[in-house]
Amino acid sequence: MLTRIDHVGIAVPDLQAAVDAYEQLLGRPPSHRQVVESDGIEAVMFEVGESRVELLGCTGPTSKIASFLERRGGGLHHVAYGVDDVQEALDGYTGLGLRTLDTCPRRGAGGRLVAFLHPSAAAGVLTELCQQDPAAAGHHG
Amino acid sequence: MLTRIDHVGIAVPDLQAAVDAYEQLLGRPPSHRQVVESDGIEAVMFEVGESRVELLGCTGPTSKIASFLERRGGGLHHVAYGVDDVQEALDGYTGLGLRTLDTCPRRGAGGRLVAFLHPSAAAGVLTELCQQDPAAAGHHG
Repeated sequence: MLTRIDHVGIAVPDLQAAVDAYEQLLGRPPSHRQVVESDGIEAVMFEVGESRVELLGCTGPTSKIASFLERRGGGLHHVAYGVDDVQEALDGYTGLGLRTLDTCPRRGAGGRLVAFLHPSAAAGVLTELCQQDPAAAGHHG
Repeated sequence: MLTRIDHVGIAVPDLQAAVDAYEQLLGRPPSHRQVVESDGIEAVMFEVGESRVELLGCTGPTSKIASFLERRGGGLHHVAYGVDDVQEALDGYTGLGLRTLDTCPRRGAGGRLVAFLHPSAAAGVLTELCQQDPAAAGHHG
């Protein structure tokens, strides 16, 4: 059902410093940069194999990552898995009694359909499901 | 240089409960289970695409994850990237002035050559380098 690690999300207090660090670490520039106003975040993505690293900066005090940054100072925030169909996956997990944060898919960074599971469903890890973009599917076979 | 996300490491207070949760979440059984006495951990791996999820339980009070579990109660612990040559990667990062926790590769879970970078090199994220097992390389093309 979950076909790959789509990305790891890392919350950072200083987005540009983190982008500079990952350019050195990964030896490549970011592939995508986007503000998601509804979540109060700016996301910068780096491609790594079939996965990505997502650096998340805060755009205001009501940001979805503001309390995480305040509590932890930054670091690993969530893991996202690729799925063929987010709604089908959500229905399957609900049927198994797993707790979800979304009951239906919504649009995330890059316009893709996403949904979150509660950390209690994944040993304390905030977990995202990302629907494979049909246009990108060919690149991954 | 870094070719893929090799795994995400998740520290858990109750290893069997976490294994049960990830069997449900990923819809498959673990592929590998191993005690690493030198680190005081028991590691259970699940395959996801070209990556893995590594659940880390503590085998004693001197475990490398004991203080993390005490401080955080569990959760995302580190990210590991696949590299062709760990020593070459370490030398490259040292040359760039990045801080490493190991100066030369050592044997990790599964007997593979690994080394850790200091979180300061990766926006606060403990980062591991894992050398691609030559025997497994064929499976990944």
